[in-house]
Amino acid sequence: MIDQFERLPGIGPRTAQRLALHLLRQPEEQIHAFADALLAARSQVGQCKRCFHLSAEPLCEICLNETRRNGQLCVVADSRDLLALERTREFKGSYHVLGGLISPMDGVGPDLLHVQSLVQRVDSEEISEVILALTPSVEGDTTSLYLARLLRPFSPVSRIAYGLPVGSELEYADEVTLARALEGRRRMD
Amino acid sequence: MIDQFERLPGIGPRTAQRLALHLLRQPEEQIHAFADALLAARSQVGQCKRCFHLSAEPLCEICLNETRRNGQLCVVADSRDLLALERTREFKGSYHVLGGLISPMDGVGPDLLHVQSLVQRVDSEEISEVILALTPSVEGDTTSLYLARLLRPFSPVSRIAYGLPVGSELEYADEVTLARALEGRRRMD
Repeated sequence: MIDQFERLPGIGPRTAQRLALHLLRQPEEQIHAFADALLAARSQVGQCKRCFHLSAEPLCEICLNETRRNGQLCVVADSRDLLALERTREFKGSYHVLGGLISPMDGVGPDLLHVQSLVQRVDSEEISEVILALTPSVEGDTTSLYLARLLRPFSPVSRIAYGLPVGSELEYADEVTLARALEGRRRMD
Repeated sequence: MIDQFERLPGIGPRTAQRLALHLLRQPEEQIHAFADALLAARSQVGQCKRCFHLSAEPLCEICLNETRRNGQLCVVADSRDLLALERTREFKGSYHVLGGLISPMDGVGPDLLHVQSLVQRVDSEEISEVILALTPSVEGDTTSLYLARLLRPFSPVSRIAYGLPVGSELEYADEVTLARALEGRRRMD
């Protein structure tokens, strides 16, 4: 049991031992419930067939929610990024999960990602704006530029802002971020 | 000497002791040169009378450089922010150093900052764009909105982008930054 806990990300030998000893002190049905939850999650959680977010049902809750079909489609690399955006409570549209980023170095081309289905959605659904919310890295930039070129015939495409994070000091910002913030400046009207 | 070093920001008792002992091992003329440099800097470095950047001359090097009068005027809170922007090598215009940010909590109003001289410059110099490069905080936002309203009759006003810093992970961005990045998204054309 300790070995299994240690294989989890961010859990070292001592935490693994603490978790295992804690479970051993619980009633036996608690351990059964834990094991069942693991097996159930593994067997039941698949992907939403429309947006590829994690979902136990064929369509995820966001895709089933009619009020979220407001014409905005936000493209993210994976479900963790989707959940981060959901926490902001700012975005009211629907999502499309790519399943990764284009990375020629790692041999990941657009064909390994949910790109074809994205084009089909933007072509067939009533989309007024595609918002690319990809990480500010070489892979994120490559993927954003690729998708923008691909999707522009069907819909306006925008990308989230890169610049100074809120609460940061200009003085301590790295040069690339500061250059991006300068380049991405916005007119105040 | 140890006491004096300890008063400097980021220098603790052990570092102060190390620096002082190092200086004691140097030839006497080295200590004289150090002391002279301190006194000379204090007596000679003042403010550029046009942009209020630190300068030993009446006008700083940037203000004296004719090629930097390209119509872009970047407004910063202090000289450290100016130096951070200079390190990016992206900005080729001139600057105006406010000397702080508006902060009603601390009793700092526009009259305590170099705001009047900024308006005069924007009115009298040939300025095609004022770029506000203030920190993303309550004070920075207040000051940006105040200056934008004040300067718009004379020149277009823009502000640097707030969003995800380069190299960061979307997943780990705080909610306010992510909301700002979403709100500040840009059309990809």
